[in-house]
Amino acid sequence: MQEYIAYYNGEWMPFSEVRVHPMDRGFVLGDIVFDVERTFDGKSFRMKQHVDRLYRSLKYVRIDPGLTADEMLDLSEEAISRNEHLRAPVGDFRVNQWVTRGIGGSGFPGGPPAVCVNVLPVDFARYAKAYEDGQHGVITKTRSYPPEALDPKIKHHSRMNFNLATLEANDVDPGAWPLLLDMEGNLSEGVGYNYFLVTDGVIRTATDTAILQGVSRGMVFDLARQLDIPVVEEDLQPYDLYTADEAFFASTSYCVLPMTVVDKRPIGDGKPGPVANQLLAAWSEAVGLDIVGQAQRFAG
Amino acid sequence: MQEYIAYYNGEWMPFSEVRVHPMDRGFVLGDIVFDVERTFDGKSFRMKQHVDRLYRSLKYVRIDPGLTADEMLDLSEEAISRNEHLRAPVGDFRVNQWVTRGIGGSGFPGGPPAVCVNVLPVDFARYAKAYEDGQHGVITKTRSYPPEALDPKIKHHSRMNFNLATLEANDVDPGAWPLLLDMEGNLSEGVGYNYFLVTDGVIRTATDTAILQGVSRGMVFDLARQLDIPVVEEDLQPYDLYTADEAFFASTSYCVLPMTVVDKRPIGDGKPGPVANQLLAAWSEAVGLDIVGQAQRFAG
Amino acid sequence: MQEYIAYYNGEWMPFSEVRVHPMDRGFVLGDIVFDVERTFDGKSFRMKQHVDRLYRSLKYVRIDPGLTADEMLDLSEEAISRNEHLRAPVGDFRVNQWVTRGIGGSGFPGGPPAVCVNVLPVDFARYAKAYEDGQHGVITKTRSYPPEALDPKIKHHSRMNFNLATLEANDVDPGAWPLLLDMEGNLSEGVGYNYFLVTDGVIRTATDTAILQGVSRGMVFDLARQLDIPVVEEDLQPYDLYTADEAFFASTSYCVLPMTVVDKRPIGDGKPGPVANQLLAAWSEAVGLDIVGQAQRFAG
Amino acid sequence: MQEYIAYYNGEWMPFSEVRVHPMDRGFVLGDIVFDVERTFDGKSFRMKQHVDRLYRSLKYVRIDPGLTADEMLDLSEEAISRNEHLRAPVGDFRVNQWVTRGIGGSGFPGGPPAVCVNVLPVDFARYAKAYEDGQHGVITKTRSYPPEALDPKIKHHSRMNFNLATLEANDVDPGAWPLLLDMEGNLSEGVGYNYFLVTDGVIRTATDTAILQGVSRGMVFDLARQLDIPVVEEDLQPYDLYTADEAFFASTSYCVLPMTVVDKRPIGDGKPGPVANQLLAAWSEAVGLDIVGQAQRFAG
Amino acid sequence: MQEYIAYYNGEWMPFSEVRVHPMDRGFVLGDIVFDVERTFDGKSFRMKQHVDRLYRSLKYVRIDPGLTADEMLDLSEEAISRNEHLRAPVGDFRVNQWVTRGIGGSGFPGGPPAVCVNVLPVDFARYAKAYEDGQHGVITKTRSYPPEALDPKIKHHSRMNFNLATLEANDVDPGAWPLLLDMEGNLSEGVGYNYFLVTDGVIRTATDTAILQGVSRGMVFDLARQLDIPVVEEDLQPYDLYTADEAFFASTSYCVLPMTVVDKRPIGDGKPGPVANQLLAAWSEAVGLDIVGQAQRFAG
Amino acid sequence: MQEYIAYYNGEWMPFSEVRVHPMDRGFVLGDIVFDVERTFDGKSFRMKQHVDRLYRSLKYVRIDPGLTADEMLDLSEEAISRNEHLRAPVGDFRVNQWVTRGIGGSGFPGGPPAVCVNVLPVDFARYAKAYEDGQHGVITKTRSYPPEALDPKIKHHSRMNFNLATLEANDVDPGAWPLLLDMEGNLSEGVGYNYFLVTDGVIRTATDTAILQGVSRGMVFDLARQLDIPVVEEDLQPYDLYTADEAFFASTSYCVLPMTVVDKRPIGDGKPGPVANQLLAAWSEAVGLDIVGQAQRFAG
Repeated sequence: MQEYIAYYNGEWMPFSEVRVHPMDRGFVLGDIVFDVERTFDGKSFRMKQHVDRLYRSLKYVRIDPGLTADEMLDLSEEAISRNEHLRAPVGDFRVNQWVTRGIGGSGFPGGPPAVCVNVLPVDFARYAKAYEDGQHGVITKTRSYPPEALDPKIKHHSRMNFNLATLEANDVDPGAWPLLLDMEGNLSEGVGYNYFLVTDGVIRTATDTAILQGVSRGMVFDLARQLDIPVVEEDLQPYDLYTADEAFFASTSYCVLPMTVVDKRPIGDGKPGPVANQLLAAWSEAVGLDIVGQAQRFAG
Repeated sequence: MQEYIAYYNGEWMPFSEVRVHPMDRGFVLGDIVFDVERTFDGKSFRMKQHVDRLYRSLKYVRIDPGLTADEMLDLSEEAISRNEHLRAPVGDFRVNQWVTRGIGGSGFPGGPPAVCVNVLPVDFARYAKAYEDGQHGVITKTRSYPPEALDPKIKHHSRMNFNLATLEANDVDPGAWPLLLDMEGNLSEGVGYNYFLVTDGVIRTATDTAILQGVSRGMVFDLARQLDIPVVEEDLQPYDLYTADEAFFASTSYCVLPMTVVDKRPIGDGKPGPVANQLLAAWSEAVGLDIVGQAQRFAG
Repeated sequence: MQEYIAYYNGEWMPFSEVRVHPMDRGFVLGDIVFDVERTFDGKSFRMKQHVDRLYRSLKYVRIDPGLTADEMLDLSEEAISRNEHLRAPVGDFRVNQWVTRGIGGSGFPGGPPAVCVNVLPVDFARYAKAYEDGQHGVITKTRSYPPEALDPKIKHHSRMNFNLATLEANDVDPGAWPLLLDMEGNLSEGVGYNYFLVTDGVIRTATDTAILQGVSRGMVFDLARQLDIPVVEEDLQPYDLYTADEAFFASTSYCVLPMTVVDKRPIGDGKPGPVANQLLAAWSEAVGLDIVGQAQRFAG
Repeated sequence: MQEYIAYYNGEWMPFSEVRVHPMDRGFVLGDIVFDVERTFDGKSFRMKQHVDRLYRSLKYVRIDPGLTADEMLDLSEEAISRNEHLRAPVGDFRVNQWVTRGIGGSGFPGGPPAVCVNVLPVDFARYAKAYEDGQHGVITKTRSYPPEALDPKIKHHSRMNFNLATLEANDVDPGAWPLLLDMEGNLSEGVGYNYFLVTDGVIRTATDTAILQGVSRGMVFDLARQLDIPVVEEDLQPYDLYTADEAFFASTSYCVLPMTVVDKRPIGDGKPGPVANQLLAAWSEAVGLDIVGQAQRFAG
Repeated sequence: MQEYIAYYNGEWMPFSEVRVHPMDRGFVLGDIVFDVERTFDGKSFRMKQHVDRLYRSLKYVRIDPGLTADEMLDLSEEAISRNEHLRAPVGDFRVNQWVTRGIGGSGFPGGPPAVCVNVLPVDFARYAKAYEDGQHGVITKTRSYPPEALDPKIKHHSRMNFNLATLEANDVDPGAWPLLLDMEGNLSEGVGYNYFLVTDGVIRTATDTAILQGVSRGMVFDLARQLDIPVVEEDLQPYDLYTADEAFFASTSYCVLPMTVVDKRPIGDGKPGPVANQLLAAWSEAVGLDIVGQAQRFAG
Repeated sequence: MQEYIAYYNGEWMPFSEVRVHPMDRGFVLGDIVFDVERTFDGKSFRMKQHVDRLYRSLKYVRIDPGLTADEMLDLSEEAISRNEHLRAPVGDFRVNQWVTRGIGGSGFPGGPPAVCVNVLPVDFARYAKAYEDGQHGVITKTRSYPPEALDPKIKHHSRMNFNLATLEANDVDPGAWPLLLDMEGNLSEGVGYNYFLVTDGVIRTATDTAILQGVSRGMVFDLARQLDIPVVEEDLQPYDLYTADEAFFASTSYCVLPMTVVDKRPIGDGKPGPVANQLLAAWSEAVGLDIVGQAQRFAG
């Protein structure tokens, strides 16, 4: 890994020197929230929406990071520019902000919150091939947390259920990505992504009761409006996905990725669908960069 | 903090040098399990039960620590003996084992699991006074995870719901400890402890559907049997706690601690109850140490 | 109605002069708890258990009646003795205590709690015939309140769901009594009574999660123990009642009453069962009075 | 209290002479439905909508009041005009209709339904100050009844859960008003009021699955349409309220009241929000009366 | 019964010779899906929509019928034309396709799927009278399957819950049709039909979470659009049906049928409503046949 | 298949001539209940318990078979003896009784119930090898029906959820058997079998809330009592099975079969466990036949 420069607790330092204290509540108790963005050709994208969501997470869990949202935004842009000279070989960056409640055991912290802003390369290798072949999905037994226990609208690290879902998806179809249901059995979200289906020309996806309010999900809505494709947020069941014409994932790194198989069954004709491709084209235009081409170029 | 010696990834080192990598899945994704014990006069207590539970957690989440349970047990005893010379000022130790899935981003890890065994002083200061005055409890809106999302019988770090419950308890009664309900509205567990009530001479507590299978809880059952006090595991509701004769907490550090107030209402006559005191006396006898006296002596 | 003497807000007065203020929260907001007992040959029965339950209800809803439990007990006995001269024509009395939070609108009360202790004749006419013919039951669509909304272990007046269940039972089988299920679909309780079934010689009934902890229910348990009939508290479903050998109701007024038909289907052979009759005989012996005979004599 | 004139069971009489019979099922079993309106400058407001809702409640619980909806409407207007001479010192009236199933014990009634129509002063003192300072709210553990047990769309007196929620809110923040969730954990209603939040210029509130279909809620929808403010009815969670820009209550007496704090956390900037104020201004215009000014004038 | 000709496993044969093997999984394990259409004056109606739904059912349960959807469509039309000479005495046909997984015990099948396409007379006698008098409904205790156990969007034969619901409806009101709720207590569907209510001129019906996606339901939506009657799909409760202005059923055989009584209570004025009649008129026009007149003529 | 003789609707005939009418409600609507037993060396086993359960199923679904339980028992024994001459090549028989509600479409039947009693060979080939190697299990996403929709205590043919669960288990681990959870996420039953786990020497299994009350399950309880192995019926979660020392299936055909792998993870040491083997030995002794040896001999 390159010597990326990261902001950590008030200082800029090589990311390799950032270490989490083993008594930090963010580690011991998952007492941490975060957010992630990516750049397109080195330029940030909807950064303010991400930072606003981070501050909603902070407000919910009542951690005061000691920085305003504007300061966090500036630090995030600075993290990008400070690492710009390292971008060429990787194409683009993910930017990551995280804030823990600080050092402290089971009682409350003595130390101040730990705040980090750092960049990492976009992991093109994980999904570049899937733009053409499609990515498989598996509906897992492991469910999303119910909001009464922990609201999925907060972006936090308490993700053991995501880890279990990932293992479970691989049990069924190696390399497939997990698709969770909420506690009522409705389609909810994946592990760091939202998922969508298309029936009779309508994009359908979960309401935001038990999912993260994805920024990429919002971008899908905006592009669909622009493309005159209707979008519906509603309670959906596995039946709807099994019998859909088309399906896709959306997330910060890859924007939109076609889902071609679910639970070992082809979706539609088992090939990436036209709506996913339309969205990718429109998104590429919006950011002035061929999203798929870049991914394939840098996946190598 | 003293220079305790810890085992970390195959080496013994000062605990102050143990640092968690910011890309370790144990930090980024809560992909970690752990267990905690304490010593009584420097001797471990039911260590094998704790290590067995740790290995059940490991089995469930499918992390192979690269150590057998017996090796983990030996390392844990070694951690105690290596730090024995530092025990006098603090009275006794907590021993902590944790195992993460290793370094890796959203994909699966390239690195091996991180394994740590370390000791910390028992935090007598947090509860010593409560043996006499009683500790307050607050039933929170925040619920336990349902087993379908994340089984509370695993001991993991994905505890954002515990953090929220703690804040919430303090909103109602500063310093009070949270008491969670399961998704069906039954009494379940606290944030690192089980809780019990006594009605008409019977100890009653939650079944282990949505709680950690507490080792201290098991000890309470054993002592109650020895003292001829009946114990019932059943679905209980807040009514049962509000109208109980007596209530108490149980956990590794303090063994048993009387609960005297719940939701600002006195339990029974609002004083520590006789059953809690009987259990503390029997437990003290079992470990050959005056549990309450020691706590008060070292509470500082 | 006779000129029974009642205790009301510190005074003894004719019951006909007791009137509830239309601004009393007990009326406007159902802000009231109560309990009911009956006499056997003019003597109270398990009065202390009823008063203790009343005080648990008071504690739960946080109304202070301005009287100790002992004073309430004394007033209740006094209510019986003050009306003893009126008992002959009716056989025995129900005794009723109720306590409201006092006068006040949607804000909290300015006035003190209203406390009433009064007697009424046992309503033998409602059920005397059923000792021989059996009483019908109907499982209703209307459910018991879940404890998270309002715990059925409190004895209160917020009983609109009982009124609806009664109407519903009459839709199916005129004169039948409603049998409620809890929110999970398990048999729970009736509208002022518990119900039981007998399979292979075992008395089976609901756990007390979503029912009133009936004093008569407790007496059934005690008599069953004395008669060597096993009793199990568990989650039961309509299947268990439809296929039972026998079933019965238990409540303060009639003690035990056979249920012979449920949802228009005969239970067992459609006649009162032997266990119900054994319990009635044992109960009669315990209170020194032929319970069935008395009811039939005074039903007229 | 003034000598208001009330209609009670066919007669007009001083309200102070209206007394509820202690054997009335409306008192003993909560077997009663009601509705409440208010006047603006002595004129009724949406009275027909309220009376229609009362008749839906009556239809649901199958009580025949012996009066048509038109007759009830006339009686209600008559109650206002008969008390008009008493209005000046209090500003405006609440009008209250209630109908019980009549006298009867656990069996069904012998007597006819009791019908009352009466007026009371609007309780300006309870909330006048909150137009400027904002009213606090607390999300309670106590839940709304599920429709399967008792449909919240009926307006009845079985409100022990409201009483418990009110006590609970005061435990957290004295003087705060309770905000209930439904059994699934979604925002539902308060104790006699609906509540709303505003995010990005959109008014969002609960669907009417588990709430009263508020007449004031309907007025909020109408005014928002007139003001071109979008309104969405949907399943919302506490997250949505904690992170909202603004929130408010709506009810008959105060129309709209800003909510500025929830669970001790400021909503938005912690001050009454612009949408609430727009609605109050539009409502004032609609009824030809300065709602806030009147409340402050008469709050005493 | 006439000698209708049916397609069975590759051959055309008299329907009276079609017999199901007692080891066919379609019989032993309910391992079968099907669909049903009707003709209007001998012409098929929305046959392709029905066949598409059949193929969604087949896809979900993973049975390959060995025929394409187009071949199934052709066979279905052929079944109509082969029996056309028998249509006059009965007016019109129902067409029925079913596909089982084939012969096999508890293990998987050795034999090929069994495929049948057959016609039967429309059962006008069952409902013709109800166009004028209205059909009664009863809300049953028996619930729809939750999608997590068996998705009601599949059209299958595992209908024991429908049989129980039908018996139950007859217990309350002989001849009435059952109306099921989903597991959350919302109005869902009947036993082979959807149901709708009308309030203030709006047609309201269940979302398709826990119901069959009725083709007739779709036709109701289309006609309503054409008639400028708004339609809402939402979570509804019994309250909404009890207090509706009007209600109706929709299904393949009778298209639309007024519901005039629910749970023995009149809906609206207890007479067939104007919206149902408008829909019937528009439907008749769409298919060029007086639907009601034909039914009454052939009900014989 | 041999020419077994079967009882069908009052006659004895070759089973190959038994055919189900395609309009029989048992086929069209799953309106059928059944039971299954097996012989040991040609002798029936607990036949009366099975027939009693069949009659509980009949009572629940309100089908009158036109035969008493004693007559059904006699017919069942007669089916065995009439086919005894065909038993030698297959070892032993399964005996199957089923009763449908008779011919009839969506309305109720015109015809009488169809009653069948027939024998089939025990399918030793399906499981004989698994006595030594163990059978794999997979916990499915497909859930058991909730009793409110269709009580699993009835033995019926509405088993589409079983078919889906079987396909799903094969997706994960080809040849593995499905293990269902109930709607609350607790271990429930398989598709025609119960399952058990062993922890610390205690046999643990689901309560009978959402499972068939297995006759083999009852036999396991009886043998365990005889062998002094404690048995607990309780709510269990996947955690309990993943971390068990041992697990097994129980059903009529194979009695007890070890489960050695669940969700691709070994149970205990991944070999058949001692408790399963003890139970098989005791069962063999009880029926006077080496159960495992016979299965292996006839597995072919």
